[in-house]
Amino acid sequence: MNKKAIVKIIGFILCFEALFMLPSTIIAATARQYDLFAFIVVPVGMFAIGIPCTLIKPANKNFYTKDGFMTVALSWLLMSFFGALPYYISGAIPSFMNSFFETVSGFTTTGATILSEIESLPKATLFWRNMTHWIGGMGVLVLTLAIIPSFGGRGVHLLNAETTGISGTKLVPSLRKTALILYGIYTALTLILVLCLLLAGMNVFDSFLHAMSTAGTGGFSSRNISIGAYNSPVIEIILTVFMYLFGINFSIYFVILTKGFAKALRSEELRLYTIILGSAMLLIALNLMKTYGGNFFTALRYSSFQAASVMSTTGFSSTDFNLWPTFSKTILLLLIALGSCASSTAGGIKIVRILVMFKAARVELKKTTHPNIVKSVTLDGRAIDNTVLHNVWVFFLLYVATIVSGTILISINGFDFATTFSSVLATVSNAGPGLNLVGPLGNYSAFSPFSKIVFSFCMLIGRLEILPVLFLFIPKKVFRSNDIKRKKRTFSIDKS
Amino acid sequence: MNKKAIVKIIGFILCFEALFMLPSTIIAATARQYDLFAFIVVPVGMFAIGIPCTLIKPANKNFYTKDGFMTVALSWLLMSFFGALPYYISGAIPSFMNSFFETVSGFTTTGATILSEIESLPKATLFWRNMTHWIGGMGVLVLTLAIIPSFGGRGVHLLNAETTGISGTKLVPSLRKTALILYGIYTALTLILVLCLLLAGMNVFDSFLHAMSTAGTGGFSSRNISIGAYNSPVIEIILTVFMYLFGINFSIYFVILTKGFAKALRSEELRLYTIILGSAMLLIALNLMKTYGGNFFTALRYSSFQAASVMSTTGFSSTDFNLWPTFSKTILLLLIALGSCASSTAGGIKIVRILVMFKAARVELKKTTHPNIVKSVTLDGRAIDNTVLHNVWVFFLLYVATIVSGTILISINGFDFATTFSSVLATVSNAGPGLNLVGPLGNYSAFSPFSKIVFSFCMLIGRLEILPVLFLFIPKKVFRSNDIKRKKRTFSIDKS
Repeated sequence: MNKKAIVKIIGFILCFEALFMLPSTIIAATARQYDLFAFIVVPVGMFAIGIPCTLIKPANKNFYTKDGFMTVALSWLLMSFFGALPYYISGAIPSFMNSFFETVSGFTTTGATILSEIESLPKATLFWRNMTHWIGGMGVLVLTLAIIPSFGGRGVHLLNAETTGISGTKLVPSLRKTALILYGIYTALTLILVLCLLLAGMNVFDSFLHAMSTAGTGGFSSRNISIGAYNSPVIEIILTVFMYLFGINFSIYFVILTKGFAKALRSEELRLYTIILGSAMLLIALNLMKTYGGNFFTALRYSSFQAASVMSTTGFSSTDFNLWPTFSKTILLLLIALGSCASSTAGGIKIVRILVMFKAARVELKKTTHPNIVKSVTLDGRAIDNTVLHNVWVFFLLYVATIVSGTILISINGFDFATTFSSVLATVSNAGPGLNLVGPLGNYSAFSPFSKIVFSFCMLIGRLEILPVLFLFIPKKVFRSNDIKRKKRTFSIDKS
Repeated sequence: MNKKAIVKIIGFILCFEALFMLPSTIIAATARQYDLFAFIVVPVGMFAIGIPCTLIKPANKNFYTKDGFMTVALSWLLMSFFGALPYYISGAIPSFMNSFFETVSGFTTTGATILSEIESLPKATLFWRNMTHWIGGMGVLVLTLAIIPSFGGRGVHLLNAETTGISGTKLVPSLRKTALILYGIYTALTLILVLCLLLAGMNVFDSFLHAMSTAGTGGFSSRNISIGAYNSPVIEIILTVFMYLFGINFSIYFVILTKGFAKALRSEELRLYTIILGSAMLLIALNLMKTYGGNFFTALRYSSFQAASVMSTTGFSSTDFNLWPTFSKTILLLLIALGSCASSTAGGIKIVRILVMFKAARVELKKTTHPNIVKSVTLDGRAIDNTVLHNVWVFFLLYVATIVSGTILISINGFDFATTFSSVLATVSNAGPGLNLVGPLGNYSAFSPFSKIVFSFCMLIGRLEILPVLFLFIPKKVFRSNDIKRKKRTFSIDKS
């Protein structure tokens, strides 16, 4: 393992995180609230630790796949640790366990909270809380790639490990440019959303907060009852549209910019995503007719907002869907599990994986009746590599296994089955709210510290798509294979 | 499609089913109860329809894989239809929908019931109810193979489609002998269990009933509160052991008989099955300590019976596990999903598939760090064919998809999420009882007729392991592939 290189990268990441904390420092200084001290001492401390690390010069220029996974997993853990300090030091969240949970939930863009009273928090703390969503949505390593040119060569592993989906999307030959384009699109969309929310009558502070939360598909709000507090159909429609947009594969936007709409709309994943979301909105609206006095449009208003919210794994709510009929709630749970497109800021299994698996199933079924058929699985007209296909199956297995293991560990807490299962599903898929106790008006404070640790790992496993976290825990011998000649994939650091 | 051959086979199956109904006719005649008429008219009618069908001489000697799937799916549907008639005609179950549900539940060895009052049923009806378990456990097509020599050639497809697991187990080169051996072991074990139950003090009638139910891992009992009615630790231990035994791959018994214990114990599936069951028994017992006043042995008594009952997907209960803590209930749900070994009478995903998938995942993880590794998945020391591996992945996807679709369809009924989810899981895995409304003291009578149809298909899909049922419904074009040169796998009928 290339320890020096890993420490160097983590040094950069801490510096970036500290930079992202500075807006909160300014807000705290302006508002003169009790969290100012925390927002001065924490970033200063992080610079003090981070800057010396960035000066390390790794003698070994090789950077293995495993180093990439390790860097990603460690940096996310450390980011969460340092990100939790402002809450804890200021006393805004008195328990460190809760502060850590809230930060992991922020960075992983889950949006599960242990807070029941949000509105009384100091402004800078609220801003930092939603800033973690914005940072976590695109991933801080992607940012590191965009800014530090010398990481070019190692970047493949980092991009693959941090972005979601079936393979790291390299939009242009240069990794650095890819990362810059991704962050550019992300920032532009966020600012457009801020503008829309301002025009819809939301105040400046709340507009920024909710735009960051929506962009990262996180779900933290500055209001106790989330978007329901505004009771504004216009705001709901704007957010519905943007939650949908942030659930789309970001490379689609690049295709739109470079090759036009027509080409982008041919994406099979985008189509299926839109069809599933649209059908869910409609089915839930029909099911809710009775709940909303037979008014289809009122039902559609709530159903479309909630469906977009959970499928993009944002987790905002405009009403208490806990009170909806079981059919609607079951559809919502399914959307949470599916998630949106790969390489978006959303969580869940991702539509492209669902698509690929069912296509593979179709091919296998055909082979059952026509054993000599030669047919491969295609996506957008191109054949899918067998390795990618295997990775999709393994991901699906590990995703289900994570949900199952999580449910068993959380069930020790003794809450009802719907609470237990839906809370694990909502954290692994980075959605946030679930059913019953963890419904839109509930929160995660009632769980034991052990459960909160389990949830934290569920969120990290979900955000980093299992593998990096797995590499932290699996004993080395599982990956050792003395019986076979090894040949590690290595990259030397170049200046791309 | 070879329609004539399919009709001929179904004719044989109806005759066999009618033969299996005759013991009930004798019991009804002896007991002089109100169901005698039904148990005369139904088998007579079945012979009247079945015998002419068996006389058909198919001109076409080819029998395709698809014909095999079609035969299996159709014969199970027809078996259930005719099997339901005695309940309906005698009036023991006044609604035909409920009679059909009960029969499907019987043949698929699920053991889910719509009856709340069982003990007042006539004896012959009770006997037929549990006879359906015994027939369904091994599969009536396997029996057909054993008795009708001329089906030798076609048998491969039938055996593959009706037996469970990753590939049809041909113990000896002749399919007919394989089928005979399987039924021989099955009958012998059932009779040994009858003897044990008699010695434990159960009466003759109940011993036969519970032995048939255990052998098929079904779960119907003659008592309203199942095995709890006897409150006998000896009976519980006997049933625990036999539920475990009927969850073992039947080829293991063949290996024991021909090659001795040592060789049989080397089976990885058997080992994992035993380890999971043992761990579950222990974990639940520890969790139940408080429930049973700190007495570990009382806790272990209930936990071991219940764990063996649900993992073998039998579904007997010795107490109301609905009242247990969430942790215990979650473990039970997991065991229901896992099921036991392939080629046993149990349902669920099957341990061998779980084993193969995790082994495949390990190989893929190794490839992530060592991309040039050449390593295949092995089971019991032999490499697993890629086709088998793909089939396992597809099965897993379709199993999860069935559970999800079933849950959505049943959620329309509006019962709570735990009831909805667990009832679908329990029917697809052919276990029977679930949580809340469908707990060990509950039943399926409260569901709508639509839900009962969904449950019936869930049970059939689970028992026939998805594919045959899928072939009934999927439009032909899904399996058509004009772009590729087809070569169907055909077998001509031989006299093996």
